[in-house]
Amino acid sequence: MRIDGNIEIIAHIGWPTYSFKAPLIYNPYFEQAGINAMVTPMGCKPEHFPEFLRNVFHLENVRGALITMPHKVSVMDLLDVISPAARVAGACNAVKRGSDGKLYGDMFDGEGFVRGVQRKDFVVEGKRALIVGAGGVGSAIVASLAHAGLKAMTLYDVDATSCDALADRIRANFPHVRVCVGSNDPAGFDLVVNATPLGMKKGDPLPLDVSRLDANTFVGEVVMAQEITAFLAAARARGCRTQVGTDMLYEQIPAYLEFFGLPSTTAEHLREVSLA
Amino acid sequence: MRIDGNIEIIAHIGWPTYSFKAPLIYNPYFEQAGINAMVTPMGCKPEHFPEFLRNVFHLENVRGALITMPHKVSVMDLLDVISPAARVAGACNAVKRGSDGKLYGDMFDGEGFVRGVQRKDFVVEGKRALIVGAGGVGSAIVASLAHAGLKAMTLYDVDATSCDALADRIRANFPHVRVCVGSNDPAGFDLVVNATPLGMKKGDPLPLDVSRLDANTFVGEVVMAQEITAFLAAARARGCRTQVGTDMLYEQIPAYLEFFGLPSTTAEHLREVSLA
Repeated sequence: MRIDGNIEIIAHIGWPTYSFKAPLIYNPYFEQAGINAMVTPMGCKPEHFPEFLRNVFHLENVRGALITMPHKVSVMDLLDVISPAARVAGACNAVKRGSDGKLYGDMFDGEGFVRGVQRKDFVVEGKRALIVGAGGVGSAIVASLAHAGLKAMTLYDVDATSCDALADRIRANFPHVRVCVGSNDPAGFDLVVNATPLGMKKGDPLPLDVSRLDANTFVGEVVMAQEITAFLAAARARGCRTQVGTDMLYEQIPAYLEFFGLPSTTAEHLREVSLA
Repeated sequence: MRIDGNIEIIAHIGWPTYSFKAPLIYNPYFEQAGINAMVTPMGCKPEHFPEFLRNVFHLENVRGALITMPHKVSVMDLLDVISPAARVAGACNAVKRGSDGKLYGDMFDGEGFVRGVQRKDFVVEGKRALIVGAGGVGSAIVASLAHAGLKAMTLYDVDATSCDALADRIRANFPHVRVCVGSNDPAGFDLVVNATPLGMKKGDPLPLDVSRLDANTFVGEVVMAQEITAFLAAARARGCRTQVGTDMLYEQIPAYLEFFGLPSTTAEHLREVSLA
């Protein structure tokens, strides 16, 4: 990768930085596609983040910022305009400065999930989904599904309070969506999603009773610790179509590229170039 | 160049950035030498510079900053500890944060010049030099020559005020050096340096009367617009040994690498890798 004085920066801000994945995916693509931009890891602790964020956007060659842990929630207070997806998710992981000088924030975890299932010919419009897990990624997925035209959703989380709060945010922002809470029975849904961390550790229980899964249900997963988690393996054994966790990761990136106004590509191409 | 979450940043701060040379020299070397660091161009206008500089040093993976136009002088007010070379030059182009949390500034333009002539077996100690041009780079060269043990110097600039001011700074900081001002007659000097911009534009007059150059005088040049400037060509025609402008550039970099605590190398190696 050739870095010259015309390069544009996407500041990747978080702490610690050692586990950052984005530079390893974006930068090989930029190089291969001849885009003079780079994702630059910037290790920033919480006490310095608000002032640093304001300052990094004073640079003339900063095209945007990827915001990651531990700043995804706190960044919300520093922005001028927040997308519905980020507002409903309660978190934000992409920031850009508009030509009006304002800072715009968006959230593409959920968008990545939705793009992935759509690419697998699952039509979201008019469908019914069960989402288990109402944390950050679950909230983002729920918001994106609602935005994409889901008709009805059931939300479940062991933490009933966060589940209710998410349901309230969905009802407030997407009044057309029917929202139920409190059951993780997957029977009868078009789409079932594990948005809990269950499956990250060996020996984790499954997030729901897979024996109640219908064969024609589409099953999605957010856990990336292994490509085929125990939950996905069980769903496949029942005949379900599935989406693996890393699909969501790669599918987000075209959304970020578009948000930053950079030439975009497909998730497949990104996966290919980053693994080359 | 592979950019991962463990990479350390050297922030290259200036405006405009398009003509930045450092990323094209440092980064190929870092890649070739397996040093996980990169020089990152950051376009910063003067009104944002003081706050940005403070903030960029709050990042956990910033190893230092290269400061260039238009901030080389204004940065002096933002530092805690300034090297003698930078103080005498009245400008600074390298900043690091010490383990004591303080910001340290240094200036290596002059160091690059001196290392270059020393590598060509010119011994500075005890010698007499004429330096024509008392601007930023001339001041830096003069300070480094004084620091390296020059016995006597004559300074000349069409702007007599800046020439006198530089002479005063040298006298105050290096009382062992004899300083004269006001003549650009090169006769009888061991070392003669063009530190003016003359030679950057076609048709520029020569900075001094080359017919007065002695054959055993070593002649240095700061202009990099072409490898052999008209001034250097004339000096060579008189039998003088010479140093070209880009030698100063490449010779600075080992000094910066040492300042930043990174594994260093030779100017020759840097030139070779960056031109490969």
